[in-house]
Amino acid sequence: MLAELLTTQPKKPSKLVGEAFAPSNIALIKYWGKRDLILNLPITNSLSISLGEKGARTRISLNSANQNTVLLNGHLIAHDSAFYKRLSDFLDSIKPDPQQFYNVETTMNLPVAAGLASSACGFAALVKAFADLYNWDIPEPILSILCRMGSGSACRSLWQGFVEWHAGERADGLDSFAAPLPYTMPDLAIGLCILSSAEKPISSREAMRRTVETSTLYESWPKQVMFDLAEIKQALENQDFHNMGCIAERNALAMHATMLATAPAVCYFLPETVAIMHKIWKLRAEGLSVFFTEDAGPNIKILARQTDIQFINQQIESIDWV
Amino acid sequence: MLAELLTTQPKKPSKLVGEAFAPSNIALIKYWGKRDLILNLPITNSLSISLGEKGARTRISLNSANQNTVLLNGHLIAHDSAFYKRLSDFLDSIKPDPQQFYNVETTMNLPVAAGLASSACGFAALVKAFADLYNWDIPEPILSILCRMGSGSACRSLWQGFVEWHAGERADGLDSFAAPLPYTMPDLAIGLCILSSAEKPISSREAMRRTVETSTLYESWPKQVMFDLAEIKQALENQDFHNMGCIAERNALAMHATMLATAPAVCYFLPETVAIMHKIWKLRAEGLSVFFTEDAGPNIKILARQTDIQFINQQIESIDWV
Repeated sequence: MLAELLTTQPKKPSKLVGEAFAPSNIALIKYWGKRDLILNLPITNSLSISLGEKGARTRISLNSANQNTVLLNGHLIAHDSAFYKRLSDFLDSIKPDPQQFYNVETTMNLPVAAGLASSACGFAALVKAFADLYNWDIPEPILSILCRMGSGSACRSLWQGFVEWHAGERADGLDSFAAPLPYTMPDLAIGLCILSSAEKPISSREAMRRTVETSTLYESWPKQVMFDLAEIKQALENQDFHNMGCIAERNALAMHATMLATAPAVCYFLPETVAIMHKIWKLRAEGLSVFFTEDAGPNIKILARQTDIQFINQQIESIDWV
Repeated sequence: MLAELLTTQPKKPSKLVGEAFAPSNIALIKYWGKRDLILNLPITNSLSISLGEKGARTRISLNSANQNTVLLNGHLIAHDSAFYKRLSDFLDSIKPDPQQFYNVETTMNLPVAAGLASSACGFAALVKAFADLYNWDIPEPILSILCRMGSGSACRSLWQGFVEWHAGERADGLDSFAAPLPYTMPDLAIGLCILSSAEKPISSREAMRRTVETSTLYESWPKQVMFDLAEIKQALENQDFHNMGCIAERNALAMHATMLATAPAVCYFLPETVAIMHKIWKLRAEGLSVFFTEDAGPNIKILARQTDIQFINQQIESIDWV
């Protein structure tokens, strides 16, 4: 299917090195559950905000050897690792010539596999670098679909700002891609609280699969998303920071709730996670408009107003503001 | 309604002081959500295990003054407190003569209002002490209904061992009462991890109401209970400790999940709660058959085999084994 989308594109690189940056993105309305595990087709729409300068920069060039070489943050990825295989399979699916292999060099300025959408920005940067190498002329929805094939939420990492991923309905996924939204929220500040940069005990892929298969509570999730999505768009339209934060936070908590109710349970909360959640609730009870969201990992992303950053820094340690 | 149940009973005390003990109980399949807020009628059945010697002892006698006097663990309860009003209203609803008032003296050997079913054993001990004072001759289901009117889960605190509360269907609640179950699990040990004995920021009453009203995920809860209840009875029938623990733990987590998805969120987890949850999961991953349950509060109740107590004490601090 992918091959067909790319048949009209150049078969040879137009330059020695393709290069691109893609921002990480965090979902305010979460992507949680797939209707197709191979094509990464989601059960619901989702909505994200991109993380500006935080993300992945990738350089890609032809490799004269008959295999790919992958460097992540300067470390060579072992050829027998799952990550190498996933990346190579993906490259195989988009490359114009089975005889071509690549050097891929990615640097990320955020922790890998710790729920900070490292695979999202990683695959998006890879697709963009690939497009740059071959000088592809491809519409954005197709690029977004390619990203999605690598890692679902990567399809949202092609743009800065607010982005919506349309779940689509087609079995082949050709209507499942992301697009930027026309909203801005100039006073929004996003603070990363990296509580653990250790690799996750269970990947989001696996956690998602287990939730869909075993969580009794999951059947209510699509309704929650539909409701939250409509409300958050209204809040963004109105530049209503407070409501946006409320909705994003409740959506994240509902996602973690579906995980808690899986068998066996998936709990990404660490003690430190819960400590910050309570701190944020306390600040909010005291009148501050501050919220959090949390992806499939223990780290907290704070949603605050720019003007409150200084005050929040006095209350919560080591926040990395994007 | 209550008055009718009691019309045939003695109108005067048969002794100076009525006295009774009722154990606290912890639900293995949780009571979460009411179909009638006044009568404490639940949406689903629930199943509990009583806590042996941990509970409430209550002495009750006539008070010559025109008001009730309530002592809880030696402290006089203020007449303008919500607790005093709740207790007095309850006494008003069961007493045979509007001119009678009482001295109520309760001692509990567990923290009050910290999710350890203090109101359950408190109201059950009160009803039993009242029955003792007047020498009531009343079938157990009616006693259980009276307890339920005071505090829902109190209806399960009339017995030791495993108890099931039948939700019933009648609007007047006359088919909503608890009864002991014929199962035993001799090697079951219950360990209390009291992480905070501070009063809860939100009562279980209020948390339950908020969940039913606002949690999108709650609509799946009754199905979860039906499923878990059937499975845990089978496990109890088979004296299958491991399955019993699995089911109790997943049921508790599903309940907390419904709370996380309320608006605003109810999160009884403290950092210490999550730390112990992870410790228990780690022990289980290492092969130990140990589980937990958690009610509407931050404290953890460990479910283990008697033979593993010593080992678990080396891994987790300050467990109070019942």
